[in-house]
Amino acid sequence: MNKDRPAENETGATGTDFMHGLAIDAVIFGFHDHQLKVLLMRYNKTGVVALPGGFIQKKENLNEAANRIVSERTGLEDIYLEQFYVFGDHARSDPEPMKDILTANNIKHDENHWLLQRFISIGYYALVDFTKVVPKPDTIFDNCAWYDLTSVPQLMQDHNVIIQKALISLRNDLDSKLIAFNLMQEEFTLGDLQILYETILDKKLLRPAFQRKMLSLGILERVAKKWTGAAHKAPYLYRFSKNI
Amino acid sequence: MNKDRPAENETGATGTDFMHGLAIDAVIFGFHDHQLKVLLMRYNKTGVVALPGGFIQKKENLNEAANRIVSERTGLEDIYLEQFYVFGDHARSDPEPMKDILTANNIKHDENHWLLQRFISIGYYALVDFTKVVPKPDTIFDNCAWYDLTSVPQLMQDHNVIIQKALISLRNDLDSKLIAFNLMQEEFTLGDLQILYETILDKKLLRPAFQRKMLSLGILERVAKKWTGAAHKAPYLYRFSKNI
Repeated sequence: MNKDRPAENETGATGTDFMHGLAIDAVIFGFHDHQLKVLLMRYNKTGVVALPGGFIQKKENLNEAANRIVSERTGLEDIYLEQFYVFGDHARSDPEPMKDILTANNIKHDENHWLLQRFISIGYYALVDFTKVVPKPDTIFDNCAWYDLTSVPQLMQDHNVIIQKALISLRNDLDSKLIAFNLMQEEFTLGDLQILYETILDKKLLRPAFQRKMLSLGILERVAKKWTGAAHKAPYLYRFSKNI
Repeated sequence: MNKDRPAENETGATGTDFMHGLAIDAVIFGFHDHQLKVLLMRYNKTGVVALPGGFIQKKENLNEAANRIVSERTGLEDIYLEQFYVFGDHARSDPEPMKDILTANNIKHDENHWLLQRFISIGYYALVDFTKVVPKPDTIFDNCAWYDLTSVPQLMQDHNVIIQKALISLRNDLDSKLIAFNLMQEEFTLGDLQILYETILDKKLLRPAFQRKMLSLGILERVAKKWTGAAHKAPYLYRFSKNI
């Protein structure tokens, strides 16, 4: 990103500062109140709901662009991000919802407006600490908020499919990449962690086996007993060990 | 792909028929003589060696473009293909090798030639039956041939990195996706299969455990004994069951 000169606004007619035909869509997962959540954008005038997304500046690295896009929507830095799939069917390019949004925003456009062309979209999923996120709208959508994964509305284009594919990738990555901790606050009990795994995998796990497995990985550091008022029953708090 | 009118040649100055800024690079794996092989393109006049690659036609689905590109180089259809990573660092775009190739091919070009712009590349790996492939050059590279994975030369741009990343993805996918069979001829012994796994994973496996695991998956169909001249010692031939 050129820090001396801010990039052209994304709604400009020619999109001079961006690579054309290529977008990033971000499935930002959070976990709160025993629910997996996803951060979505809504344009209130038309009611269109979509994944947070954006474009790659001409001199910007792809992964940096994804980080910038998620950072701008969440207020976070150092975000856990994973590329999971590229969505490139020709049929996914439907310019109509974007036309409606441009019109409702009083943004002049003809058929050649760069946002109305075919886009191939690179899907990233992000795992964030829900409690630290301050959702922030972008230049196109005037609302940004968490939705329960179980009650996501009909989204723009193929964005519902993108979320499903991200969830499958997250499930597949859970054991091999040990990444679930990115969804937790800094300190947590093994009970909290089990609920998170059960929610992502959508199945019950056996408590002794789960705890044995997690502790055997050597990635958890015991911090202190959690204060519950009943000291003899208090579970231990753990945190993810930064030494691995 | 518009079948009525062939797409413009990729070396045309404006690349009218293709999406710009976006390429596909294919790591085509084969297995022969106890070696994992990769199919590479060589331009003999300049000596540049590169992965097979190509571009997405404006009305073509991304995955169909990948299939077309691998099909054109191998002569095969129904190819096992897997997207594995998108390579999008700004620094990977070095127009110099392509300039040399265009010059050596007597193709006129100025700095605006579309092949000299920044490309983000979508990496696919393909698993093919080595014995069925008839390698075929493309419009830019005049030679197409198999190389042992252990003796790949210095390639164009970041193509060596792309191969390494493809190999890591193949190793990770081996158990979860049960895809190694795509590298075998139709019928094989468990011994052949073990050698393939050992070569991909670059480690020895215990024979009884490997055979037990493979047979327990329920994906192998026993065909007949292999004729070796010593019937009592002949191992069984298997094939991948098409009913799963």
